[in-house]
This record gives sequence, C-alpha cells and structure tokens, in this order.
Amino acid sequence: MIRSTAFAVEPWAIRETELRLADLAQTESLLALSNGHIGLRGNLDEGEPAGLSGTYLNGFYELRPMPYAEAGYGNPESSQSLINVTDGKVIRLLVDDEPLDVRYGELRRHERVLDFRAGTLDRLAEWVSPTGRQVRVRSTRLVSLTQRAVAAICYEVTPLTGTTRIVVQSELVANESLPGRDDDPRAAAALAGALVSERFEHHDTRAVLVHTTRSSGLRLAAGMDHVVYCDGDYDAGGDSFPDIARFTVAADVPQGGTLRIVKLFAYGWSQERSVAALRDQVSAALAEARHTSWDGLVREQHEYLDDFWERADVELDADLELQQAVRFALFHTLQGGARAEGRAIPSKGLTGSGYDGHTFWDTEMFVLPLLTYTVPHAARDLLAWRHSTLPAARERARQLGLEGAAFAWRTVDGRECSGYWPAGTAAFHNAAAIADATVRYQQATGDQQFAAAIGLELLTETARLWSSLGHFDPTGHFRIDVVTGPDEYSAVADNNVYTNLMAQRNLREAAAAVARHPAEAATLGVGAVEVQRWRAAAESMLVPYDAELGVHPQAELFTVKDRWQFDPHDGDQYPLMLHNPYFQLYRKQVVKQADLVLALHWRGDAFTFEQKARDFAYYEQLTVRDSSLSACTQGVVAAELGHLALAYDYIAEAALIDLDDLQHNTRDGLHLASLAGAWLGAVAGFGGMRDHDGVLSFAPRLPPGLTRLAFRLCVRGSRLRVELVDGAVTYTVTGDTLALVHHGSAAHVRPGEPVTLPVPPIRELPAPAQPPGRAPGHHSPR
Amino acid sequence: MIRSTAFAVEPWAIRETELRLADLAQTESLLALSNGHIGLRGNLDEGEPAGLSGTYLNGFYELRPMPYAEAGYGNPESSQSLINVTDGKVIRLLVDDEPLDVRYGELRRHERVLDFRAGTLDRLAEWVSPTGRQVRVRSTRLVSLTQRAVAAICYEVTPLTGTTRIVVQSELVANESLPGRDDDPRAAAALAGALVSERFEHHDTRAVLVHTTRSSGLRLAAGMDHVVYCDGDYDAGGDSFPDIARFTVAADVPQGGTLRIVKLFAYGWSQERSVAALRDQVSAALAEARHTSWDGLVREQHEYLDDFWERADVELDADLELQQAVRFALFHTLQGGARAEGRAIPSKGLTGSGYDGHTFWDTEMFVLPLLTYTVPHAARDLLAWRHSTLPAARERARQLGLEGAAFAWRTVDGRECSGYWPAGTAAFHNAAAIADATVRYQQATGDQQFAAAIGLELLTETARLWSSLGHFDPTGHFRIDVVTGPDEYSAVADNNVYTNLMAQRNLREAAAAVARHPAEAATLGVGAVEVQRWRAAAESMLVPYDAELGVHPQAELFTVKDRWQFDPHDGDQYPLMLHNPYFQLYRKQVVKQADLVLALHWRGDAFTFEQKARDFAYYEQLTVRDSSLSACTQGVVAAELGHLALAYDYIAEAALIDLDDLQHNTRDGLHLASLAGAWLGAVAGFGGMRDHDGVLSFAPRLPPGLTRLAFRLCVRGSRLRVELVDGAVTYTVTGDTLALVHHGSAAHVRPGEPVTLPVPPIRELPAPAQPPGRAPGHHSPR
Repeated sequence: MIRSTAFAVEPWAIRETELRLADLAQTESLLALSNGHIGLRGNLDEGEPAGLSGTYLNGFYELRPMPYAEAGYGNPESSQSLINVTDGKVIRLLVDDEPLDVRYGELRRHERVLDFRAGTLDRLAEWVSPTGRQVRVRSTRLVSLTQRAVAAICYEVTPLTGTTRIVVQSELVANESLPGRDDDPRAAAALAGALVSERFEHHDTRAVLVHTTRSSGLRLAAGMDHVVYCDGDYDAGGDSFPDIARFTVAADVPQGGTLRIVKLFAYGWSQERSVAALRDQVSAALAEARHTSWDGLVREQHEYLDDFWERADVELDADLELQQAVRFALFHTLQGGARAEGRAIPSKGLTGSGYDGHTFWDTEMFVLPLLTYTVPHAARDLLAWRHSTLPAARERARQLGLEGAAFAWRTVDGRECSGYWPAGTAAFHNAAAIADATVRYQQATGDQQFAAAIGLELLTETARLWSSLGHFDPTGHFRIDVVTGPDEYSAVADNNVYTNLMAQRNLREAAAAVARHPAEAATLGVGAVEVQRWRAAAESMLVPYDAELGVHPQAELFTVKDRWQFDPHDGDQYPLMLHNPYFQLYRKQVVKQADLVLALHWRGDAFTFEQKARDFAYYEQLTVRDSSLSACTQGVVAAELGHLALAYDYIAEAALIDLDDLQHNTRDGLHLASLAGAWLGAVAGFGGMRDHDGVLSFAPRLPPGLTRLAFRLCVRGSRLRVELVDGAVTYTVTGDTLALVHHGSAAHVRPGEPVTLPVPPIRELPAPAQPPGRAPGHHSPR
Repeated sequence: MIRSTAFAVEPWAIRETELRLADLAQTESLLALSNGHIGLRGNLDEGEPAGLSGTYLNGFYELRPMPYAEAGYGNPESSQSLINVTDGKVIRLLVDDEPLDVRYGELRRHERVLDFRAGTLDRLAEWVSPTGRQVRVRSTRLVSLTQRAVAAICYEVTPLTGTTRIVVQSELVANESLPGRDDDPRAAAALAGALVSERFEHHDTRAVLVHTTRSSGLRLAAGMDHVVYCDGDYDAGGDSFPDIARFTVAADVPQGGTLRIVKLFAYGWSQERSVAALRDQVSAALAEARHTSWDGLVREQHEYLDDFWERADVELDADLELQQAVRFALFHTLQGGARAEGRAIPSKGLTGSGYDGHTFWDTEMFVLPLLTYTVPHAARDLLAWRHSTLPAARERARQLGLEGAAFAWRTVDGRECSGYWPAGTAAFHNAAAIADATVRYQQATGDQQFAAAIGLELLTETARLWSSLGHFDPTGHFRIDVVTGPDEYSAVADNNVYTNLMAQRNLREAAAAVARHPAEAATLGVGAVEVQRWRAAAESMLVPYDAELGVHPQAELFTVKDRWQFDPHDGDQYPLMLHNPYFQLYRKQVVKQADLVLALHWRGDAFTFEQKARDFAYYEQLTVRDSSLSACTQGVVAAELGHLALAYDYIAEAALIDLDDLQHNTRDGLHLASLAGAWLGAVAGFGGMRDHDGVLSFAPRLPPGLTRLAFRLCVRGSRLRVELVDGAVTYTVTGDTLALVHHGSAAHVRPGEPVTLPVPPIRELPAPAQPPGRAPGHHSPR
C-alpha cells in the first residue's frame, strides 16, 4: 500500500512527494508515459537507481524458446517477449564532477507529478551533492499523443550555492542490464543483450542508433536531438558507439541561473525496412518535433487531453480518492490504446514487462468497452489488429483440427505464445470476446465500413470456430465440451455457461452480419447451410442449470463438486495457486475470478433478476479474486442487484489495484483491464449501463458515500452525458436524438432537451458472503 | 516387422540367423539379458556397431532438470533417468591387427540365440577380415539369476585359415557415447558423461572402476576377472584409466585351435557406501563367481530356469509362433523381476532406456499378476519396494493437499518424475493398482507376515488417499472428480468408472485388512470413524451409467461427447497423439487404451454379462490402441464374451508387440506390461481365470487355431495345472486341495486326483467393430 502516504489525494494528478527507493519499481509503473506506440516507465532521468528500466515499442519483441517437461503436439516452440529497447530517457547530471545519484548526498526536496490533463510527468529535485553543492533539477517528460513516434524531455538545472560546473549527458542506451527473471510466472522474461548494433552515428546535436534483435529479426532505430539554453557559457558535443550515443553539455552556471536542455527523441521499427529507411524515418520525426518546438508539443498534448476528458470524464463527488483513481485509470487506459494503430494493447499496456508484454482476451472484454464509448477509433484499431492476425489464427485452428480462426490466447504479434495447453488450446472464450467487442463497436459507432471490411470476417471466422468446436448431442443440444472458461481455477470442463452464452451471441451476430452483408459474405465462402447451422447451434445451445440448488453451475457438474475448504485462520492461503496444485483447484468449487458472474454482466439478457440474485449469492461464497479480472465484474453485478455498498468496495478495489499495489506486482506493470474495469464499475455498475443487442440502457444508483455521479459517452457520433444527483438522473445529448432505457423504461433524449428521471427504490436482498479474508476491503470516502 | 524373416519360429528360443544393421537397436532389446538387478542389452561383444549401448543397474539413475513453459505449484523440479553404466560386455578382437567389425570384411555366418531354458545369449560368427583371415567366434553371455551381482561371458576364437595372431581386449568402459535424445516423448534421455571417476585399478587378471554420478551422487563399482585357455602361446596383462580398464591377451593360435576367455564381471552400487566398501563387494562377488566356475554358473542358470518353467510354463499347441512369443514374454518378465529385490521393475525392465527407465502403474496391474502366480517372491519384492517409497508418497500427498500416500506416477526411486500434471498429479488409479496387487499377492500366497508388515500399510495409506480425494455429494454419492483414468486420450474427468470401482475395492479391502490386523492398524492410527468412512465411501461409490445408451460412460458425461471423426482412408492418422492436440483428444469419444474395458476385466464382478457385452461393443468402436497397454485387456474381455477369434488376434498382438516391433519403438526397450499381458491373455483370456475376492475361477475356451492350452499356477504354496484339450478341462493339483470355480460351478481339486470338466457352449454375440484400420491384425497359426 504505497499510496496512503506517498501520494497526495487530488483530482487530476498523482503527486509523489517522497522518494522511497524500495517502491521505485511500483512508482515507475504508476508514473509511466505512453501513447500506445512508445512506452516509457517512470524511471528517474539519470537512469539510476531503477527498479526496472523500461522503454517499450508496441509489438517489438524478441523470441525465446519454450521448454516442456513432456512434448505434445501443437505446443508452440517459442514465445515472444516485449523487450526493453534503446533508452532515450537517460539524462545524466554531474555537479562539480559529482554524479547526481539520489542514493548519495542529500535529496532535500522531491516531487513527481503525473498530470492527467497535461499528459506530462513533472519532476522537481533539490539535491545537495556529497561535497555540499546544491542544485535544483526540474524535468518535464512527455510521450506525444499527437506525434506518435516522438517523446521529449525538458530538463533544467539551477545551482543554488554559487556558480557551479554542470555537465549534462543526454543519452541513447541499448542493452541496459536488467534484473533476472524470478520464478513467479507473472514476472516477465528479462531478455538481456537481445539488440545487435547495426549502425551508430552522431552529428551536431543529433544521434541515431540502429539495432536488430538477435532472434526475431526486428529492426529498430532510435534518434535524439537537443535544444540548449544556458545562462552561462557552455560547450556541447556528441559521441556514438554501438550501444550508446551521447550529447554532452558542459557549462558554468551562476547561482540562480539555469541550464535548460530540451531533448527530443524518436523511434521507428520494422521487420522489413532497411537501416537507412528507419534512420531517415526517425530523423524526419525529430525534424517535425523540432519544428513544433517544446512548447508546441506541450500545447498539443494538453489539447488532445482536453478533448479526451470532454468525451470521457467520470465524476464522482464526495470521494476524492476514488475520483482520482478513476481518472488515473482512464488516463492509463487512454495511454495504452490511443495510438496503438495496428498493434495490440498488451495486458499491462507499455508500462512494464509483466506477462512478457502479451495481449489476452481481457483487452477486448475489459479495455475495449471503455475505448468504444470514449475513444472509438482506438477500439477500431485494436479490432483491426486482431483482424490482421487472422492468417496465424486460421493456421492455428487448422493445427488444432478446427475451422475458422483460433486467435492466440497470449501473443505479441498474433502467434500463440502459451505453453500451458489448458489455456493455450482450450480457453476459446477469447473468440467470443473478440466477436462481442466487434458487435459493440459497430453498434456504438454505426461504422459501416468497418462492419463490412473487418467486422463481418471476425464474426464469421469466430462463428466457424464455435460451429466446429461444439456438436449436437442425441437430445439435440449443442454442447461445447472440455473448454476452459474465464475462471483459471477451473479448466477443461464441459459447457461453461459464460462460454456457451457468449458463443451463442457470437453465432447469432455472425448470422445477422451475413444477412446484412450478403455480397461480402459470399466472398468469404459463407453459405446458407453454414448459417443455418450457426442459427441452430445458437438456438440449441446447452446452458446447464442445477434445479436442485436453483443456480447455474459455472460449467456442467460444477455444483456437485466438492467445496473448497477455506482455512478461516490462515491469512497466507491466498493466492491459492501458489500453495495448491492445479488439479486440486480444478476439482473443487472454488473460483479465481468472475466466470458465471461475468455471464451475469455481459449476457445479463439471458437471466432473470431472481436467477442473477441466486447465482451471484452462490458464487460470492466461492470467489477468491486471486485474479485482477474479477472485482469490477463483481461490482457491476452487485450494483445491479442493489448491493451498493458491496459494489462500492469492489469498484474501489478495481480502481485502486495499482495505486495501492493490491496484487503486489504493480512493479511489473499496470493492470490495464482492472483499471478499465474501474470505468466499467462506475458506468455499468453505478450507472447500470448495458448495451445488449445495441439497446443502450441505464439504471443509475449512488452507493452510500457518493453524492453525485456523472459520466460521458460517445454514441453513434453523438455525445451523451448522464448525471445522477439528488435521486434524479439527467440525460443530456449533443448531436442526434438518442433512444435509451432508464431503469426499464424507454426514453428519447433530444439535443438541447435534457431529460430528468427519478431513481426507483431498491429491492432489498440479503447480503452475500465471501470466502474468509476475501470480502473486499471496506472503502470509505476520502 | 523384423521378425518374419530374421527369426526362426521355434518353441524355446529366439534364433537370429542374419544380422541386419538397421534393426540392431531392436534386436539389442529383444536379446537383452537381465536378472532384474543387472541388465545387458544384446550389444555385439565388440561394442560396435551398436544401436544403443546399454548396461543398466536397477535404481541407478542420474538427475536431470525438468523445464516448464509456465511454472506451477507442485511440479517436480527434476527427473530421474536410468543411465548406461560401466559397460562390462565389451570384448574387442583383433585378427592379425584387423579389428573385428561386422561392417567391414565379410560376415560369412551369423547366429544369435536367446535360449529361454538356458538363460544365455549364444553367438556364432564366422568372419573374414578385409585381409582375408577367417575366424570363428563363439560367445555365450549370461546374467546370473543365482548370483545377483554377476554376469559372465565365455568368448572363444578359432582361426579357420592358418595360424593367426589374435589379440583379445576385454574391457570395462564408462561414459560410452550414446545417440542424442530425439523429440519423441517416449524416447529416453541419453545422459552423457554422468559418471565421474573415483578410482581405477588393475591387478593380474582383474580390474575395478569406481564412479559417482555427477548430480544424483550414486556410487558404482564395476569389476572384472578372467580365465584364459589357449591352444597356443599367449601373453596377458592389464591396464586401467579413469573411464576404461582393459585385460589384453595376445596369442598365436593355430588353425582349428581355440583361444577361450571366460570373463566374469560384477557390479555394486550404493548411495552411502564408500569407494573401498564397494570395490571389496565387487571383488567378493568375482571371487565367488570364479569359485563357482563358468560351468557352474551355466548349470545354476539352467536349474533356476527349469524350476521356473516347471512353475510357469504356458503351452499353446498348434501355433508355434504364439507359443514362442508367450515363452519369450514369460522369460523377459521373469528377467525383469527375478532379482529386483528392493527396487522397482521399470516399464521396460532393464532392456533399454525408454521412458527414462521409469516404473508406472502397469508394473502392478499387468506384470504383477504373472509374477504373483509364478514367482511369488518377486511380486512380494516389488510391493516391498513400493512400501519403501511411502515416505516420498506421503510427502507428495501432503504437497497435493491430500491424505495417505500419493505414489509417484513415474519414478526410479519413488519420487515423482512426471512434469505433465494431468498424469503426474491426477492419475490416481495407480494407488488402486498397488492395492489390487497387494490383495492379489496376499490371497494367492496366504503370506501373513507380508499382510501384517506391508500389506496393511499399503492398503491403509491408499484408502486414506481415496477418502480424501473423493467427497459425498448432496445425494449421498461418493464422487471422485477430475482425475485421469488409464485412457491417456482422456484426462481430468469426473468419476472414471475404472478408477471408482478400483477405489471401491481398495477401500473395502483396507477396511477388511484393518479388521484382520487390529493391533497393527492401531499403530498406523486407524480409528473406527476412519474405517466407517471407507466403508461408506465404498458402498456409496458413484458409478455413472448412461441409461439411454445402456452403457457405462468411461467417465461421467463421456457418452454425450462428440465422437471422433476417423478418416477411413488415412493410414497415417495413428497414433492420434502425434497429429492432434491433447484438448481435441480429451474432448471427444476416442480411447487410446482399455479403460472401461479394463474395469470389465479387473472389476468384472461389478458388471452383468449383458452389461459387459454392451460396454465392450461400445468401446471397441472407439479404441485405437495407440498404447501397448490395451490389446491384452481387449483380448481377455473378448474371450470372456465368446469372441474367441478376436481374442486370439488381440492376444497375439500383445505377445508379438516386440518381436514384430508393432509400436516401432522396441529399440528403446521391451514393453514388459504387454508381454506380461500375453500371459494374461492366455491365462485370463483363453483360460478365463479370475480371482475376484480371492475366489479362483476359470472358464477355459480354445480359440480357433489352437488345439491345446495348458498353464500352471502357484496358489498358496500348491501347484495347479490347468489343461484344456478336446473340449474338456483337466485341473491337477500338487500340494493342498484347492477350491475353484469352473465356468460358474464350484469344484474341489485334491492332490493326485485330477478333475476333468466339460466346456459349455458359447452364447453367440454379434462381432464388435473397431475404428478404421484399428482392427487387430488377423493372426494365423504358424
């Protein structure tokens, strides 16, 4: 819980006023900057000390071999790891020959601010060197949201004790040494020395390094340029070597005077383009950035974010901590997806190397709802990336004996990187997540071009997968046997309810899409018989139900399994997977993360209120939330069922997961899905938003502790604002008239004519119980 | 199918009359000699060419690290591999300076004979050197069944073209180079350079090498001694180095004269004993062997085997090929277990390094029935070995969150070596195999001392495992969820019928054993409540049944799964596991090896004849026999149901698995369980023998092609001979009166009063069908 004292609670920023070396890796993740293409961890300017140096380029990976104790057909031979590329953040400072290193001398003052509206990381340090020289350092860092290849740092040094000899070395550093990989499967590979130098050069204020990865054969160019201002005399010059380029400024700066260096740096990478082409690409990006100027970059960044907050802000009055956390979550989700453009959004964005920088189903299922309703082009780009991986997904399906496309469970570039077959070959619900996100994007935007060119094929190829994966049993039910659902404490079970219901929607939507786009469907070889099978499979989909208990089993036979014996006195039993073998978890009624409850949210149209209430109560007792992909969903469904205080606790947990380091691994990168889940908690939980079959519905309620909720959505080119205060909800539209449902009743909202509707009373239900020690922490407004 | 031409069909030997270099590795396995303690592959005396050099000591392994693509709690960190130890077989020959190597010069005559009654491997070679010198070499090799630490070779060279300079180098060779490990998971690790020299010495005709393994820390001494006879002058002397010791004889031998060298070699190994102690142990063994003399060793060997065949022989008239194959099978099973004494019987005996020399459940379930009724002390020794691994098995159970003992799925010394958790942590039926073998041994021998000292604890600890593994569901059934049954094309399914029925017997027998041995049970902490739970679990054991189809599902929900789509035209689809991922196999109705049918055999008391008939017909269509652990069981049940021609084909397949190299991997070692299964086929199949609840029953029938069947059994100290000829069965007893059941009717057989009973007519059933290309090959008498 690094937050409680290190960070101030304020609405539009994260402010660190004390530098704790033990928490460095966590704060580097929290203070990371990214535009979805370039990612810079919040490392100190001078490079050391560091928890984990990190500079990432989306999609830039190295291969590593995958070992197996026993070989098996279809096991991927290698995995892809996002690697730390050439570091352009480094600016070393020497004060009268003494290097600035916060571990030595005295750090009199420290402040770092991640500003959600400015899109910058500001730093202030007042440091006294071991020899007694005092300086003030200010730096402002940004990764441009408007110029995708560019990052920049404005670095200022001011002597506070007389004229001082100041040397600044601004660097590009390749193959930084990183800590070794530990045994936790969640910690990512540190692949050292992966970059092989191809060219290094410097000229005047500029330098470029070009490298290629040893195994994956990807080429990378990193360049930098500088603008210097100094209140005193200075000399400047460059150096370059295979793994380092340096621009050095030496100055005598009077007390109170300033040496100011604006560092612009840019990246380009490609699998195919030549050294010269990449070098020129980077030089052009630097030229454009120099032309824009530092002030111009800062202004563009602010304008971009003003526009984002105008479309996306969520307001939560009377709980400043949650307000801050939700904006933090929105800011990082935007950073993850804003300019990914043709690449994936990794589960940790570009904030760390956790999970090897892989993308999973949670991007579509948790991150994309937020982007769809706030930054629609980013949702489209992500789906276009999935679409671009169709060749690999089709090949994988063939290898697995299936039709259509089997998208990777975890990957950087689309090829399967999972070496654990119960996930890598059986967790097919990721196909439904892709289809669901496709349908959501299309319905929320009305993007017909996408629907015809990309959506149809995604829906068709996933429907084909389901059609070949399931079969009609002798009683006519369509069964999907031996698959792994979202809950990772179960595996390879039959007829997982979430999977089957999501597959049902997938099949229906694919059939509908074919009907809307007959010509395009014909080019994909879709025939009437095939569509007929999709419809029949959807209508006959088996959804197991335990009539005895009156609940849905997560998968067939789940509810007759033995219940997990929790130890009410063992505070260290969680996460269970670190103390128990897979088979024990799989064979018991114990749930790592929302699975049936995830179905209650995303396929809520398939359940009655009473079923939801019984199912939720049943699974609450079994769910340990050893995954970060659970609290938000439990919060959303708790809210729907009127358990508002419980919902509040869950949603706060989702929002604070990284600020409070609840999973003890924020050091490896942020939990992007949980952060996006904080938005889901506010909008689908407190706001009760659903979009089944394209019908936008709301059921806003305030939990105890909040006095006002307001959020904004982009819907088919219009803007909708929803505000709940004093027991009434006001819907305001800019653009075209929107039809929506408020607490079960239809309403039409016309531009300029806000509609205010009352919040009906709650149906009181008994409070559900959680496993020992696994009730969410009680959240109080701060 | 190396057999059809290379080996002659004869009743008491395997005779090879042509040396095919491409088949060398297979013949080395077939012609291996072992006493269960020492194993020598049938390598040529001169060491080269070799398919795979192999000298093994039971239990002598090296550790190798186990890699995982994704880490998981409870995964073993290292595996154990049986390694090729110091080779004492090597005798190199130089003929006028030209080394005997069958790849050069001309091999005019070649014969190798594995003699089942003599227990020797005889070789005759007439070779013309590249320079035209012709010699005849005769060697006879044995691994002593009476002197456990000793092997011996009598090597004779006779010049056929004038007086010839002959040099013989008799060697001990450590760290022989071996071929690399290939990708097939069934091929074992070749762990090169594992032996670190600790001492080497030679004196007169003797030499000793002492080594320790690099990682596992096991110490090994190998020694040799020699007796030389020569028709001409000779000189002899020794050498020794860290990895080689040599005794060299140089002689001028006249045409027709003979140089004869008897080589005695011996092994000792220990985890704890000193270099000096092991060296002395080996020297003592050599002294005793020298005292016995070569002729004495040969005589002892023959006497040992005369006694064995008197107790164990199976006669099958009118099919000499099957007769030979069954005796081959009996001989190798004896070799695997005769003198294992405190060590395991690996799945390949000591005939090759396949499966890393690991022991699996098939030793108890396939090999032990044979040993129990023919070499009972060997069955006892194996169970005593399992008992000795209880500390590791208890620790493993604790690690897995279970009670009692979780015996290793695969191991050399008792510790788990499986890195594939659906087998290594979920295939609990191995516990029932151990319990079943325990009960069988006790009932067949009446060994009370074993029952109290070993049997009770094995039954108790396995019952405790089942008790903690299963649970009572709300309807009162005892369920055992998410376990892996024998069929390796299914995994982690619920209530596997075979597993549940075997667990049921295990629990019942444990309760009965506690009642018989209350004092000993008290020292194991067994209480009345615990036994009550065992009995309740046994009586309430869930045995799923599909009333719709009228068959037992192999595991719950198996029969509603999709059926495997066989391609009737693809001859290369098998084995399916090399062309399909696990999850596809697991989710379909397709069976690698007898599973439900295994229950029909070993728990036949739990099924009616009609149920067996329907179940067998159902599973025949689904079973592909991609495992060697299937044909014999299918043969046994086919015979019971009157499908005698089909049974004949299956049993012949089991018996010929290695002679005909049916699995294409006999090179890695023999399939001991399938070979023992040939005995089961004859005795439990054609003979209809069952021993449910200790009642010995028979239902002999001859398949078309056989004119007479006779077999022998040891039962509670008596000998029973069963002979079927001309439609009548004669039971003859030596010892005490035996009660038995003949085709459902009780009979008492008194010593000296053979009882002859008629064979009733067969109930005709429709012939079952197998998957395309998977009907057993039609076997015709030869």
